[in-house]
Amino acid sequence: MKLSENSTTKGETNRQMTTFELQLLGTNSALPAFGRHPTAQVLRIQRELFLIDCGEGTQMRFQKFGVRPNKINQIFISHLHGDHFYGLIGLLTTMSLLGRTKPLDIFAPEGLEEMIRVQTQYAGGEAPYPLQFHKMDTEVHQLIFENNTVEVFSIPLDHRVPTAGFLFREKPHDRKMIGAKIGEYNIPYSAIPGIKKGEDFTLPDGQRIPNAQLTEDPTPTRSYAYCSDTRYKEDIIPIIKGVDILYHEATFCEDLLVKTGPTGHSTAKQAAQIAKQAEVGRLILGHYSSRYDNLERFEMEAKPVFERVVAGREGEVYGVIHG
Amino acid sequence: MKLSENSTTKGETNRQMTTFELQLLGTNSALPAFGRHPTAQVLRIQRELFLIDCGEGTQMRFQKFGVRPNKINQIFISHLHGDHFYGLIGLLTTMSLLGRTKPLDIFAPEGLEEMIRVQTQYAGGEAPYPLQFHKMDTEVHQLIFENNTVEVFSIPLDHRVPTAGFLFREKPHDRKMIGAKIGEYNIPYSAIPGIKKGEDFTLPDGQRIPNAQLTEDPTPTRSYAYCSDTRYKEDIIPIIKGVDILYHEATFCEDLLVKTGPTGHSTAKQAAQIAKQAEVGRLILGHYSSRYDNLERFEMEAKPVFERVVAGREGEVYGVIHG
Repeated sequence: MKLSENSTTKGETNRQMTTFELQLLGTNSALPAFGRHPTAQVLRIQRELFLIDCGEGTQMRFQKFGVRPNKINQIFISHLHGDHFYGLIGLLTTMSLLGRTKPLDIFAPEGLEEMIRVQTQYAGGEAPYPLQFHKMDTEVHQLIFENNTVEVFSIPLDHRVPTAGFLFREKPHDRKMIGAKIGEYNIPYSAIPGIKKGEDFTLPDGQRIPNAQLTEDPTPTRSYAYCSDTRYKEDIIPIIKGVDILYHEATFCEDLLVKTGPTGHSTAKQAAQIAKQAEVGRLILGHYSSRYDNLERFEMEAKPVFERVVAGREGEVYGVIHG
Repeated sequence: MKLSENSTTKGETNRQMTTFELQLLGTNSALPAFGRHPTAQVLRIQRELFLIDCGEGTQMRFQKFGVRPNKINQIFISHLHGDHFYGLIGLLTTMSLLGRTKPLDIFAPEGLEEMIRVQTQYAGGEAPYPLQFHKMDTEVHQLIFENNTVEVFSIPLDHRVPTAGFLFREKPHDRKMIGAKIGEYNIPYSAIPGIKKGEDFTLPDGQRIPNAQLTEDPTPTRSYAYCSDTRYKEDIIPIIKGVDILYHEATFCEDLLVKTGPTGHSTAKQAAQIAKQAEVGRLILGHYSSRYDNLERFEMEAKPVFERVVAGREGEVYGVIHG
């Protein structure tokens, strides 16, 4: 997989290399309510943009928040309930209308490809870009995608239909070149990539400069786990252990705990219990039932269990909390 | 077909009996732009609510403008381009979640039923209410639906795929009872429906009171024609002759006249030429290309041809102009 084709200035590139941000576009469950929208979120890792779920109206959320559809090369769909994918066909059509030619990967449980192909067939034929569906086994935790930047793994969840979450793990960054050393040892440009990978540098007189004198430790790798929709499921804890950001669905507050079983959802407190056991960096809640207007209640019920929690809000960008 | 099940006060009923209003929910063409949405509109006739086309996000537009999904019993889809129907599957799902049990009629060209059935199959089975698809022959002008209130006819249009517009003709209203006559002639309640239908009334002594002395002329019947998407097509003129409201697509202004042929669309001026020849009451433009930010330009180009024109705006309600 190639990186984004966009040209960037050096400053932008440096900034982008440190980017690891989750932006929520839709935080509500099945019925839109209180101005909240069905599930969609974008994850920015360095220069790449991944779309996770794509509820109805996602392309309008892109417009609102300045997300460019054709920056996306991979889309991950957790399960085939409408509030997680009804916006996909519209987005795919818009990508065509915007002149896309590069391939698009879609990872989803069985059935999505048939639904999309039936629709594009009536709407004037195939997309003018390669549309690559990857059928996902939602019962297995395994690598489903990787490129130079990231590995993505499936997370088997417990919902009413086959459902998997997604674990994004950044690949190790290069070591950081200490700028002053380039002049000091007259290091040629061609040697720098190797040094960033950990090589020592040999001077013309044969003297060997150890890598540790030339570089600093790289930016730590970061990770994000998306777990929606699901009942409380402790099996996921070893998979998501220590992730920097966990998004865990919290459809209900404790008053409707009784509904979690039949509907296949969780409460805010249950999400916090998972976050605590998995020792994650921070927890973001979402997928709120349309019964709830006030989101602070979700935070209040989760905080006694896990302090670093926030009730996710649409449009907000969530990064990694260090320290 | 039964009327709305909502109970209403007498005042509300009287007001509703005179309702004939078009509300635009989406006025843009394929790509959402400038805060405009893909096509959807609701037509309120007396106590009934009809949905015409259903672009992505229509159910969120319902929320914004206070339209209740389960007030709708008939949906009319003009053609199978995504910006006219991608919101349908989400709306149907929401109707289920809101507990609908009464039937829903959908009128559309061939193919829509297959697309919807494939999606509902994966999303947990059939809807819990009867979903009745009526395949529409887009080549023929004919009656496709009627109930006590209205007749709906197809209008063959000229687009890139099979497309039909819709002509809504209100059925004749009852004559209006003159209230004072009820006391004057001691008319029993049971006789009133017949008198409203035009019957005379016979007094106990055999004297016959002509209907003209008991009633006033009814509210005039009203009509609405929806013509989108289409090239300039004079064949529709006899069909829509004299309608009170014409919505005609105006994807382009004159600067892009050259695009109307290949894309299957019209300019604002062409829409006005149709309105003028059809001698309609008023013309509402819509389905704007995402190239245009300023809608006044559409009005300015149409007005010299047909004065009673307005560039349709989302959320606005358009009624019949009398006189």
